[in-house]
Amino acid sequence: MSTVFETQGRRDNSASPLGQASITGVTITPVAFADPPLLNTVGVHEPYALRAIVQLHTDAGVTGLGETYGDAAHLARLRMAANAVTGADPFNINDLRARVARALAADSTQGGHGMSGMVTGSSTADRVLSPFDVAALDIQGKLLGLPVSALLGGAVRDAVPFSGYLFYKWAGHPGLADDEWGAALDPEGIVAQARRMVDAYGFTALKLKGGVFEPDAEAAAIEALRAEFPDLPLRIDPNAAWTVETSIRIGRRLEGILEYLEDPTPGIGGMAEVRRRVRLPLATNMCVVSFNDLPPAVTGGAVDVVLSDHHFWGGLRRSQTLAGIAETFGLGLSMHSNSHLGISLAAMVHLASATPNLDYACDTHWPWKRADEDIVLPGALAFRNGAVTVPAAPGLGVELDPEALDRLHRQYLASGITERDDTGYMRRIQPGYELKSPRW
Amino acid sequence: MSTVFETQGRRDNSASPLGQASITGVTITPVAFADPPLLNTVGVHEPYALRAIVQLHTDAGVTGLGETYGDAAHLARLRMAANAVTGADPFNINDLRARVARALAADSTQGGHGMSGMVTGSSTADRVLSPFDVAALDIQGKLLGLPVSALLGGAVRDAVPFSGYLFYKWAGHPGLADDEWGAALDPEGIVAQARRMVDAYGFTALKLKGGVFEPDAEAAAIEALRAEFPDLPLRIDPNAAWTVETSIRIGRRLEGILEYLEDPTPGIGGMAEVRRRVRLPLATNMCVVSFNDLPPAVTGGAVDVVLSDHHFWGGLRRSQTLAGIAETFGLGLSMHSNSHLGISLAAMVHLASATPNLDYACDTHWPWKRADEDIVLPGALAFRNGAVTVPAAPGLGVELDPEALDRLHRQYLASGITERDDTGYMRRIQPGYELKSPRW
Ligand SMILES: [Mg+2]
Ligand SMILES: [Mg+2]
Repeated sequence: MSTVFETQGRRDNSASPLGQASITGVTITPVAFADPPLLNTVGVHEPYALRAIVQLHTDAGVTGLGETYGDAAHLARLRMAANAVTGADPFNINDLRARVARALAADSTQGGHGMSGMVTGSSTADRVLSPFDVAALDIQGKLLGLPVSALLGGAVRDAVPFSGYLFYKWAGHPGLADDEWGAALDPEGIVAQARRMVDAYGFTALKLKGGVFEPDAEAAAIEALRAEFPDLPLRIDPNAAWTVETSIRIGRRLEGILEYLEDPTPGIGGMAEVRRRVRLPLATNMCVVSFNDLPPAVTGGAVDVVLSDHHFWGGLRRSQTLAGIAETFGLGLSMHSNSHLGISLAAMVHLASATPNLDYACDTHWPWKRADEDIVLPGALAFRNGAVTVPAAPGLGVELDPEALDRLHRQYLASGITERDDTGYMRRIQPGYELKSPRW
Repeated sequence: MSTVFETQGRRDNSASPLGQASITGVTITPVAFADPPLLNTVGVHEPYALRAIVQLHTDAGVTGLGETYGDAAHLARLRMAANAVTGADPFNINDLRARVARALAADSTQGGHGMSGMVTGSSTADRVLSPFDVAALDIQGKLLGLPVSALLGGAVRDAVPFSGYLFYKWAGHPGLADDEWGAALDPEGIVAQARRMVDAYGFTALKLKGGVFEPDAEAAAIEALRAEFPDLPLRIDPNAAWTVETSIRIGRRLEGILEYLEDPTPGIGGMAEVRRRVRLPLATNMCVVSFNDLPPAVTGGAVDVVLSDHHFWGGLRRSQTLAGIAETFGLGLSMHSNSHLGISLAAMVHLASATPNLDYACDTHWPWKRADEDIVLPGALAFRNGAVTVPAAPGLGVELDPEALDRLHRQYLASGITERDDTGYMRRIQPGYELKSPRW
């Protein structure tokens, strides 16, 4: 049985007046793409990462593209939303949001966040809305001849800078051949990985995913990066693996070295305590992950920087609201990433380009993806000096590759993976592996 | 000497590709329209109210319309901004904002807010940006075939409800004939005015401009309105004319009667004190008038409802950011008005239609304007059951009437008025008139 989902709507290409279109159907295709054994504090990435590709078909001759998590529970919710937006006007994002919220109101399922338990508490409605918002803007742009950046208020930068995202990792998945990156399990391995990534992509900032090894070993890796790259801003993100006490100790050790310290410890209260006692900006994509989290975070003085992510903040327009809130309340703004494909990268680039107060280079897992695996045609998105040029073509500026979509969908079916489970995979390899937050 | 201002840009109508245009020139025309002697706590409206009409000309065959304050100091700043946006892309609102901010950076003049001292502390850059933002969106809509509501995310309501805005007033301006409304100087006069306004427009909410008479007399007017209109939500706005103590006393008297109490007393601290001691939602367009005011207002628990106003919140897109902040921080959202013409009303209607969390009927001074005085052609905006249907035509959906613009500009020149001065006008009539806040 194919797991491609299609709503029953009429699908044709009759010409419509400019600026008028109806969503005639939705196709949701889960895909899997190869992912290296990247380590984090909840386990290790499985051999395949999942995504769902959302196509909004219209009666106006264009199809809009969105990309989101591919976990089974999320797919089920996407299907409810797909039925609800069929027949809707892709120029009315407010109406799409209301339809998705209504469709999900009856849903009481949990989980399927696609983030392996590291981002919890984000809004289900906003996670589900996101790919429909992106695809609707893609439709608008294609019909109007405008890049999505223009629909978001206009690009303020021609290219969007990203950070090189460093991971501790094994040389390869157990039982499979080593990957091209090899192992990185100590400061030397991390520095070598960084050197290779900077040489290939030109990144002008570096982020280390921490929470894997004993905190002082990870601090030593940051210090080694500083020695090797004296001028690059550095960040570490242990995903709340540290106690408040450990966060303060390691934070102080890295004062003057880090650009920001990301989610050292769990919760708004813990973050606020660390923030009062360490002279480093504190960043988060764990304790502020929905609009509901903003009032207590602001009141509690928990963070200096919020990492936005249109995949769980309700799409591009709502991410702009987050940016406005950050500007208003004196919070810095950066951008979070999960493993993703080209539609997501395009959406991230358009959003970042039209966000004046984006203060930091954005995160991306892009280098960890095989160059020959994507669901968009190559050429539209390229890194140069660590930045991606904002596509000028109408809409997102990327084009679906139907053959590749089919190939990655078959890979999804063959993989047998239906939800991201870094912890379960780690336990199959190391049966005694324990989940713990904070870990140190 | 004409005071119409035009930048030196090239102005032609050569065809451009869809979604591409340059601003080739700006025309700023101050106008005056007849205004009755409406009383408030800083004085009385002069015989003419001022506005500035902003036209953004493009090389794409369309002109965008904006409307803002007509005070001399504001006009001077508009001209700086006009020079700065000439040559810019009307599809890039972010760039327009940056250009206006740069143009004003060297400006150190004060005043000219067009609000007679009742709204102070709003952002100069946002006040100046506003008509350019509106006119740019009008251009975008006209070129793309979309109403401005669609550019703002899509209308969630077909018609936007307004409140009937009641004023204490004299029968006519001293030395001139009585106006059609006659005097309203006590509860009976206010009730008669309300009856006439409700019958003519169908308003489903009523607001009384207070701060004019002794507070108990104004509370009595509200009680008289409640007796006459048992089902209509009622508001009173004394423009911070009351002490905290008076606000608490009158507020308690009107508990269970008012929908909200608007700016009873000055400042965030005073409002917070009143709010803790009166069981009524407190609304403001005086202590929260810029993004800078939001953090202290939220922290201080000063208000329940913010009255947005795109004329001082930086235009339509930034007003949407305000709406997102209100939603996020649990603030209600209403809309403020000054005396205005049809371009402003159209912009208010589009914004309100695309703002899901607009919780209250919007304010408008519309009924106080002569039916035969406007700078837009009649027919596009009509009240029905107290609401204005959202124009479906491209852009704002209103069309400039060049003859009327010229007539109202000549009226501006003939009036001799160059800035709004309710207090000065009152003092010419009542030489001993004193400005005082709080007054009671
Ligand atoms: Mg993180
Ligand atoms: Mg007011």
